[in-house]
Amino acid sequence: MSLTEFQRIARFFKPLSDGFPGAFGLGDDAAAFTPPAGQEVVITTDAMTEGVHFMRKQGVQSIAARLMRSNLSDLAAKGAEPYAYLLTTALPKDVEDDWLQVFSQTLAEDQKRYGGFLIGGDSIRTEGLITLSITMLGLVPKGQLMRRKTKHEVTASSNLSVYVSGTIGDSALGLKLTQGQKFPGLSPEDENYLKQRHLKPEPRLDVAKAIRPFAKACIDISDGLVADVGHIAQQSNAEIMLQAEKIPLSNVTKKLCNSQPDLFETVITGGEDYELAFVVEATEESLLTIAASKVNAPLTKIGTLRAGKAGDVQVLDKQGSIIPLKHGGWTHF
Amino acid sequence: MSLTEFQRIARFFKPLSDGFPGAFGLGDDAAAFTPPAGQEVVITTDAMTEGVHFMRKQGVQSIAARLMRSNLSDLAAKGAEPYAYLLTTALPKDVEDDWLQVFSQTLAEDQKRYGGFLIGGDSIRTEGLITLSITMLGLVPKGQLMRRKTKHEVTASSNLSVYVSGTIGDSALGLKLTQGQKFPGLSPEDENYLKQRHLKPEPRLDVAKAIRPFAKACIDISDGLVADVGHIAQQSNAEIMLQAEKIPLSNVTKKLCNSQPDLFETVITGGEDYELAFVVEATEESLLTIAASKVNAPLTKIGTLRAGKAGDVQVLDKQGSIIPLKHGGWTHF
Repeated sequence: MSLTEFQRIARFFKPLSDGFPGAFGLGDDAAAFTPPAGQEVVITTDAMTEGVHFMRKQGVQSIAARLMRSNLSDLAAKGAEPYAYLLTTALPKDVEDDWLQVFSQTLAEDQKRYGGFLIGGDSIRTEGLITLSITMLGLVPKGQLMRRKTKHEVTASSNLSVYVSGTIGDSALGLKLTQGQKFPGLSPEDENYLKQRHLKPEPRLDVAKAIRPFAKACIDISDGLVADVGHIAQQSNAEIMLQAEKIPLSNVTKKLCNSQPDLFETVITGGEDYELAFVVEATEESLLTIAASKVNAPLTKIGTLRAGKAGDVQVLDKQGSIIPLKHGGWTHF
Repeated sequence: MSLTEFQRIARFFKPLSDGFPGAFGLGDDAAAFTPPAGQEVVITTDAMTEGVHFMRKQGVQSIAARLMRSNLSDLAAKGAEPYAYLLTTALPKDVEDDWLQVFSQTLAEDQKRYGGFLIGGDSIRTEGLITLSITMLGLVPKGQLMRRKTKHEVTASSNLSVYVSGTIGDSALGLKLTQGQKFPGLSPEDENYLKQRHLKPEPRLDVAKAIRPFAKACIDISDGLVADVGHIAQQSNAEIMLQAEKIPLSNVTKKLCNSQPDLFETVITGGEDYELAFVVEATEESLLTIAASKVNAPLTKIGTLRAGKAGDVQVLDKQGSIIPLKHGGWTHF
């Protein structure tokens, strides 16, 4: 016997609003809040649909976690901390209460881990496929909002370094594994590591908090490293040079790239790393040591942002030669 | 030649963000804002999907307007004024640029008419049906937020009247007409009036602003008059008695109900009127005259809210007898 819509909300979602008075227990037309003094509100939304962004067979836990964490990663990119979110589900009839129970439980675990409360949403039936979206609100101390665009204009005398958190490319390779692709030489542990990096990404909220006092620009890597630093370059009216050998890779990904060098392009252009790429003034790089001591992920310098052709990204090998990428690097639009 | 996703955003949606600096021209991971001093933020989200909430053949203008206005109506229910919104579209491949152009143009017209700016969103491809959602932010002066729940507990000595704006039932009858149902005795103008009430509802933002200083509870009628005043009754731990002959009907709907009395149940239980139902203390009813002079819709007393069985709604005829409704009135859950 399936629950009614009201019952589903009451059982699975109302508990996720406990602790946020303005959510009104999800029993009203809207939620209400006043952000704490000195904080700016950040708002973002990310949607996912079956067959395009996920397969139902990948499991409801991963679907819920990726939905939540892609939004959390957008907050991280801005230097914001989770405050509240709204959830919209469009579900076909064959999605059972069991599915929703695990879905909401996963959201509950992520709320506990990262912060934030469910404060509203909409649940609709669809004749089509599962479509999910979260609109997430975060808070950032005034003046510490990071943007894709650098805080100051990039000029010929600018001395700006590009950094990245964690390791790059694991998620793209993990996706290939979940799609059934095989890579020779990987242990089951290696495979599992890569898959988990795709199925349960880690939003870099701690990195964001540590770097936001001094970082000059930031983005989360969802479209792929080259594309996303391209967004910084585009918005900052400047160009980015990356040094291929500096790009941090996990041991597993390093191993794969050594045996199959053509995978390197997948690594630097594949999506959903959910690491942060950010820009620091060379004179302030000493602040990174302190920042690095506060976070679990390495912070690695991978290149420079400098005056040049807006939006251009070039990846250089050890000899300083441009590595040709299939699309000749990234051009915005 | 179809536009890319980036081009679509740049052409159709970016212009809708002009005037809201924290939207960053839709070129960042998230938007940012600080609400003006003395204002509380209200947030709501409403989703619609093809085949359930709309048919593609009803026309993109109506789809866009209903999406926008159902959200605006939720703001109105809270006494809030439009501030900003995020739009998520999940579109199948056969949705052309032309469709999006009219869609965005309709949103632009509504922004101009009601206020608010597009500050973010997500555009995804789907293998399924069109699914659309808006998350809308509004502002309400602190202390003037209206809720479904009355501001004070309802006791035996409470003297509370239930009012409604505009006319009830036009949208439900208009929906039947758009679905091909025929009602004898309607002129083409009558039919058009009812259809438009469904296809282009009017969110009662002006009514909300006029009543929010003194109204004790409020809801917008989206699920149907009886169900929605039932939400007020439920949340206020009280019961509502409505007087059938007081429920305001348009001339067309009155004419139809006279010739087909069984339509009256459709009128009071059908959805999407997007009128406001609200509660006023009897001692403050004089304030309604001033409020009524500020708005274009009539404000009509239709019943009372009083201590009793929580969530009960009864509709009485002229003789004071309970009119039996198919579901025996409305019971929440």
